Amino acid sequence: MTGLRVIQGGRAAEGLPGLLVEGAAEVVTMAGGLRRGPAQDEPAILDAPGSEPTGDRGPVVACWEGQILAAGPRAELIRALEAGGYPLSRFARLDAAGGTVTPGLIDPHTHLLFAGSRERELVLRQRGAGYLEILAEGGGILSTVAATRAASVEALEEHGRRWLAEMLNHGTTTIEAKSGYGLDLATELRLLDVAFRLGAAGPVDVLPTWLGAHAVPPEYRSRPDGTEAYVRHCLDEQLPGVAAQGRARFADVFCERGVFTADQSRRILEAARRYGMQPRLHADEIAPSGGAELAAEIGALSADHLATPSAAGIDALAEAAATEQPVVATLLPATTWFLMHDEFAPARTLIGRGVPVALATDFNPGTSPTPSLLHVMTVACLELKMTPSEALAAVTINAAQALGLADETGSIEAGKAADLVIWRVPTHRQLPYWPAADLVRTVVKRGRIVVERTPA
Amino acid sequence: MTGLRVIQGGRAAEGLPGLLVEGAAEVVTMAGGLRRGPAQDEPAILDAPGSEPTGDRGPVVACWEGQILAAGPRAELIRALEAGGYPLSRFARLDAAGGTVTPGLIDPHTHLLFAGSRERELVLRQRGAGYLEILAEGGGILSTVAATRAASVEALEEHGRRWLAEMLNHGTTTIEAKSGYGLDLATELRLLDVAFRLGAAGPVDVLPTWLGAHAVPPEYRSRPDGTEAYVRHCLDEQLPGVAAQGRARFADVFCERGVFTADQSRRILEAARRYGMQPRLHADEIAPSGGAELAAEIGALSADHLATPSAAGIDALAEAAATEQPVVATLLPATTWFLMHDEFAPARTLIGRGVPVALATDFNPGTSPTPSLLHVMTVACLELKMTPSEALAAVTINAAQALGLADETGSIEAGKAADLVIWRVPTHRQLPYWPAADLVRTVVKRGRIVVERTPA
Repeated sequence: MTGLRVIQGGRAAEGLPGLLVEGAAEVVTMAGGLRRGPAQDEPAILDAPGSEPTGDRGPVVACWEGQILAAGPRAELIRALEAGGYPLSRFARLDAAGGTVTPGLIDPHTHLLFAGSRERELVLRQRGAGYLEILAEGGGILSTVAATRAASVEALEEHGRRWLAEMLNHGTTTIEAKSGYGLDLATELRLLDVAFRLGAAGPVDVLPTWLGAHAVPPEYRSRPDGTEAYVRHCLDEQLPGVAAQGRARFADVFCERGVFTADQSRRILEAARRYGMQPRLHADEIAPSGGAELAAEIGALSADHLATPSAAGIDALAEAAATEQPVVATLLPATTWFLMHDEFAPARTLIGRGVPVALATDFNPGTSPTPSLLHVMTVACLELKMTPSEALAAVTINAAQALGLADETGSIEAGKAADLVIWRVPTHRQLPYWPAADLVRTVVKRGRIVVERTPA
Repeated sequence: MTGLRVIQGGRAAEGLPGLLVEGAAEVVTMAGGLRRGPAQDEPAILDAPGSEPTGDRGPVVACWEGQILAAGPRAELIRALEAGGYPLSRFARLDAAGGTVTPGLIDPHTHLLFAGSRERELVLRQRGAGYLEILAEGGGILSTVAATRAASVEALEEHGRRWLAEMLNHGTTTIEAKSGYGLDLATELRLLDVAFRLGAAGPVDVLPTWLGAHAVPPEYRSRPDGTEAYVRHCLDEQLPGVAAQGRARFADVFCERGVFTADQSRRILEAARRYGMQPRLHADEIAPSGGAELAAEIGALSADHLATPSAAGIDALAEAAATEQPVVATLLPATTWFLMHDEFAPARTLIGRGVPVALATDFNPGTSPTPSLLHVMTVACLELKMTPSEALAAVTINAAQALGLADETGSIEAGKAADLVIWRVPTHRQLPYWPAADLVRTVVKRGRIVVERTPA
């Protein structure tokens, strides 16, 4: 009987520059770029023929100084390493023990930092209250804003460390983290700074997103022109301040009926782009709001939620998908499920139209308090009818693309970061198959072992 | 950042006979017997007034030599201990650190032991294949039977230890474990014996159930009277052998259209009762099959699944609920969810009619591969519209009753086993609220600490 242990700072296996991950039944490299279109099975698999994961043809991943060097059948790989001047004696060995190796998982949509919790809304929703109804009553997101504004930096850091550790224990090595529970310049800057510093401390990479336009804050709601006045505040005060701080890599807007219009969203995201922040978008979660269309129009990295896109919106994403700069459809089915909504994102339609699909937790206290991408993969298989292979692509290479990181991570290919998970199952098809189970054996981040299962 | 560590054999804190669990924000004792009828909130809560879990009125649980001694506000409890001849110096202290303390969770319906996995059926079901359809094609349960018959005792033991450890890490301290993947005397006996010995080794208590009538095995299927011939085999050969072995505490039958009829189920369960095995029943999972009615008629401890009971079946359970010997309705919503079925058990109707409701994982490789009762609680809140308090009762006191153990475990009351979980959330309302998160801080089994969260 064993448990998981997180290693502060990670350890370089045996102090050596190289790491050989061997003994896997299956290595899913996700090599070959963005996944678009249906996949019954993942083509980029190295697997051990028969039952010989440790044999000459067993799959091995070689890492060197934090990067992937190569992956391939053992004998062939070892010859190549030696020919390339990488002596075997400089590699530590990590035993995958008949498990599956995948790229480290990437969560491209989280609201990592908040204070308070909102479990009471679960019972309200059971009685039929809707998201916008709870919002209109000053509950929902605004209660989190009040708690977050009141929270100390230390409390936010402690919360962030706790949930980053959970995410890491579930195999996540890179996340996006949005602000948006401040809705004033000071708190938004605090959230972005804490997110940035948590990422710098590692081991999980944290990419901050400014989401000032997440909701209209209470102090603007009483005004007749409240929403527009808050948009101007975002443009004139938050955005220059956030840009000067330099922590936010992306800008996001909650484009939704009753929140921010497509026009308001466009103004904010275009201004943010001029400050160097790449646009992404909360699009069409509750009702078709022109979000998908807008994401395609402005070339957003990602359009997120998409539970209710219009036909024109789907067309726009499909058109963008055929270009060099596709908009990733980042679906958040755990949110739809937790909200007890019936209308899930049309994943099969999007995949059928060639749109690259990513999956994310949407980790947040109101509508999706799950830290686990495995759980999201299970919900995606059950509710969106995505195959296990599609779901894995959606939390690796496609999620990397949704964060503009497809050249750096998301697959096991030479030169990319050595971010790996060894799972206690013999095939990736079992990753969504054991709901809520503890499937991680080992997590490697930039070549360092950061989580390992300990004997009792 | 921390991980969970399972302690082989457990440790008596500091080698002392007593254990004080203190510093909790909330202790849910579940005192007061079986829960019937709706609960918005759990009445049997001891909580720290304001934010003083460590103050004089903070809730404390006292254990002594593996049993619960008392629970109450600190100052009052300590006076009572000293007056009762239990000196404080004989108690180790366990800090709940502002978390929630509940009884150890009880999983009253699992198929713990099997070999092989069936992740490919997930993709088949996405394409529309049904349970009985997969079964009719010789897939489904029969593929597990073939793999299990071929598995060694050692392989079954290793599998059992792995998943019991997972269950324990998710807060489960007692489970029921069915045979039923042997379908011949030798394999059924092997499964019952392994289950029994795993329980004896601890720390999780394992209560074996003989489920010979789980499906008709291949060797009987080609015969025109195959089902009836297999029923006679169960009655004439398996049952006497299982009784002579003495491992099985319960007998169960899969009463379902196309599997075993209510009449066949009655004959098997009444015969098993004469051998001293208490009856329980797989009832009305896929279609109304007279299962609920039969469970009430024969006084089964529990009627399980109940996704599709008839109106008469619900009436029968409601009538039984008013007696001294209620039939517990053990609902398995994670199964319905994993099968992508729309028709969930009518939990609100059952609760409204006063039927005691338990929840279980149904852990098995085909239809519910989850080891986590927290996950089941989440599904119960989202899909069955059970409240968090109802869901907690359903995996503690009501689950104990479903196993005939309501006098021994399932609540924090004097004389019961000191089976406790300390959770990393400040109220039990948050237990179903963080899907797939790792909420356990400490697990105590009969007064011994068997899981604890370790610092990095």
